[in-house]
Amino acid sequence: MDRRNFVRNLAVGGAATAATTAASAQSDNLPTIKWRVQNSYPKSLGEIYQLQQDVMDSIGQMTAGKFTCQFFQANEIVPVPAMVNAVGNGTIEAAYSASLFYIGINKAFAFGTGVPFGMNARLQYAWLRFGGGSELLDKELYSQYGVMHIPSSSTGAQMGGWFRKEIKGLKDLEGLKMRVAGLGGEILSAMGVIPQMIPPSDIYTSLEKGTIDAAEYAIPVGDEKTNLQRVTKYYYTQGFWDYTNQLCFFVNRDHWKKLPEGYRKAFLAAAGAYNADGLAYADAFNMPALQRIIASGIQVKAMPQDIIARGYEVAMDFYAAESARNPIFKKIHDHYMKFRDDAYRWYSLNETPLDVFVGNAVARSRKR
Amino acid sequence: MDRRNFVRNLAVGGAATAATTAASAQSDNLPTIKWRVQNSYPKSLGEIYQLQQDVMDSIGQMTAGKFTCQFFQANEIVPVPAMVNAVGNGTIEAAYSASLFYIGINKAFAFGTGVPFGMNARLQYAWLRFGGGSELLDKELYSQYGVMHIPSSSTGAQMGGWFRKEIKGLKDLEGLKMRVAGLGGEILSAMGVIPQMIPPSDIYTSLEKGTIDAAEYAIPVGDEKTNLQRVTKYYYTQGFWDYTNQLCFFVNRDHWKKLPEGYRKAFLAAAGAYNADGLAYADAFNMPALQRIIASGIQVKAMPQDIIARGYEVAMDFYAAESARNPIFKKIHDHYMKFRDDAYRWYSLNETPLDVFVGNAVARSRKR
Repeated sequence: MDRRNFVRNLAVGGAATAATTAASAQSDNLPTIKWRVQNSYPKSLGEIYQLQQDVMDSIGQMTAGKFTCQFFQANEIVPVPAMVNAVGNGTIEAAYSASLFYIGINKAFAFGTGVPFGMNARLQYAWLRFGGGSELLDKELYSQYGVMHIPSSSTGAQMGGWFRKEIKGLKDLEGLKMRVAGLGGEILSAMGVIPQMIPPSDIYTSLEKGTIDAAEYAIPVGDEKTNLQRVTKYYYTQGFWDYTNQLCFFVNRDHWKKLPEGYRKAFLAAAGAYNADGLAYADAFNMPALQRIIASGIQVKAMPQDIIARGYEVAMDFYAAESARNPIFKKIHDHYMKFRDDAYRWYSLNETPLDVFVGNAVARSRKR
Repeated sequence: MDRRNFVRNLAVGGAATAATTAASAQSDNLPTIKWRVQNSYPKSLGEIYQLQQDVMDSIGQMTAGKFTCQFFQANEIVPVPAMVNAVGNGTIEAAYSASLFYIGINKAFAFGTGVPFGMNARLQYAWLRFGGGSELLDKELYSQYGVMHIPSSSTGAQMGGWFRKEIKGLKDLEGLKMRVAGLGGEILSAMGVIPQMIPPSDIYTSLEKGTIDAAEYAIPVGDEKTNLQRVTKYYYTQGFWDYTNQLCFFVNRDHWKKLPEGYRKAFLAAAGAYNADGLAYADAFNMPALQRIIASGIQVKAMPQDIIARGYEVAMDFYAAESARNPIFKKIHDHYMKFRDDAYRWYSLNETPLDVFVGNAVARSRKR
C-alpha cells in the first residue's frame, strides 16, 4: 500500500487532483453547499450529542460558512435502520451511525464497528486507518450501497449490561431473556441466552415488569441516563461482544466526489478530531458515572471467566460458519483477524503489561 | 467545569465571540495569514514527518489558502530545546514538539507528555482534553512563557531501549551508562544507572564504540530506522519511563488570539485528527518493524519485574521530593495523579481484562 497517498486521499476515491487544489485556493469561486446529516443518537443524550453537533458546526466555520452540514437527530428524517440506504440513494447526504446497525443487510457490516473478541478501540481504529480496513470495507461492502465511511469516535469497551439476577457462571445464562444487539446476540444465543430485540425506549419498562431478565446497553456515562439501575440489581463489566464500538459517518459517494477538496479536508479533519475526543470523553467520565451508579445501590460484578472463555469459542465458531456461507464476510474477517493477531503480539508485549502493572499499583495504593 | 463551553473554546482563551463567528461567514473579509511552524522532528523520519506535513497543509486547504502554516524541520530556524521560548517571544508562531523536552525550564513540563508510571496514551489524552489537564497546564505553566498548547498525537508505550548486555535484574543497572531523556533519567539514576545526555545523531557511534552501554529511543517503527540493532544485542520492551509520549503544538498566545475563529477551528481540527491518526500509525506498523528487527538477529526481552517494581517506588519518591520544592509541579502532579487513580479504576475493570484475555487467546492460537 502507498500509505502516503492513502493519507492524502482517504476515502476520496481518487477524485482529488491538483486541479481541485488550485481551485480551492480561490475562495470566491467556491460553491455554497448545504448537506443534511442525520445522527443515530437523540438530542436527549445531552453533552455527547452536543460534541457531535460541534463536529458538524466546525465544518461550516472552517469553510467560512460555504459548506454547512445541518444535523438532524435520530429518526428525524428517516428511521435509523434505514439510514445507510437513505444515504446511498441521496435522501440525505450523510449519516452518523454505527456500521453494526446494518448487520441485517449483511453481517459483514459488524467489522466497521468492532466484533466480539475482535480489537480494542485503539487497534480497531489502527486497522481502519492504516491497516487497509477502511479501504477494504468501502470496496467490498459499502460501495455496493452507494456509500463510503469516515471513522469518527468510539466508546471503548462496553459493559456487560444490567441484570436482575446474579450471574455466577455459564449455566445462569440458560434461558435468560436478554436485550442484546449486534453479533453479540448470535454469540449469546449459542450460549443459552434468548436474545430480545427491544428498542432503547422500551428497555426500562421491560426490565421493570420482568418481561426480560437483562439488557446490555453501552458504557456508564451513557447507561447512567437510562435509569436501569432502578430496575436491576447487578451491573456487569467486560461486555466482550462490544470490545469497542467504532462510530462513523456514512457519506453518499457521488456527493462526496462533487465536494471541493478543501471541503473534504474540513469534513475529514472535523470527523477525525472526534476519534480521540469522543473516546476521551468516555474515558474521563465513565468512572464518575460508575461511582454514582454504585452509590444508587447497584452491585458491580465482573463477567465470570467461564462465560468469557466459552464466549470466545462460540464467537470463533460463528465466524467460521458465517465465513463459509458469506464470501464478503470471509474476506473482511480474514483481513481483520490477521491484523488483530499481529497487533496483539505487539500490544501484549508492551502496552498490556504496563496497564496491568499500573492498574494493580493504583488498586494497592487505595487499600493502604 | 462547563464542558460544553470548554469544547467550543478549547485553548481559545475566551476570545471566540459571536461577532467573530459572524465575520468568518464573510470569506472575502478574511485576512491572509501566514505562520511559520517548526517541527521537533527531522524530514529523515519519512512517512511520519509526511503525516505531520499533511496536518499543516490541510489547514491551508480548509481555509481556501488564506491561513497557511509553513512547516520547518527540526532546528531549521531555532534549536529544538529553544522552541518554547521562540514561540513565546514570537520568533515563530508555533512549534510541534514534546512538552518534556523543556523539563530543563521546569520539571512540570513533563506532565504535558506523560510521566513514568503515569497514564497510557488514551488516559493521558483524556486527562488533557476532558479532565482539566490542558487548562491547568496552560494556566499554571505554559502561559508563563507566552505559549499555549494543542495536543496532537502520541506514540503509545515506548520500548525500554537497546542494550549491549542482557539485563537480568536490578543489579545489572548498577553503573550502566545509558542514554535516556526526560524524567526517566532521574528515575533510572536513582536505580544505579549513569544517565548520558547524547543527541540522537551520536547514539549509534557511542553504542558502537562502547562509550555507552544502552540507549532508550522510542517505538519500533521509529527505532528501526536508527540501525541500533547493528550495534546492540538486546531490545527491551516496557519502557515505563515513556508509558506514552503525547505530542503537541505550542502556539504563541497573542498570535492565536488574533486568528479569526474559522482559522482556529481549522488548526484545532487538523491537529486534533492527528491525535488518533499518529497513534494508529504506530499501532499498525510497530509489529512489522519489530519483526524485521528480530529477523536482524536482535533478542527481544521483557524488562525484568524487579526493575519495574523498584522503578515505581523510585518514581513516587521522586514526585514527592519534586513536589516539596516546586509548587507548580505539585499542583499539576496532584491533579494528574488523582485523575490517573480514578481512570485506572475504570480501565482495570473493563478494558485491561479484555486486553489480557484477547492477547492470551491470540498467543495460544499461534502455538497450535
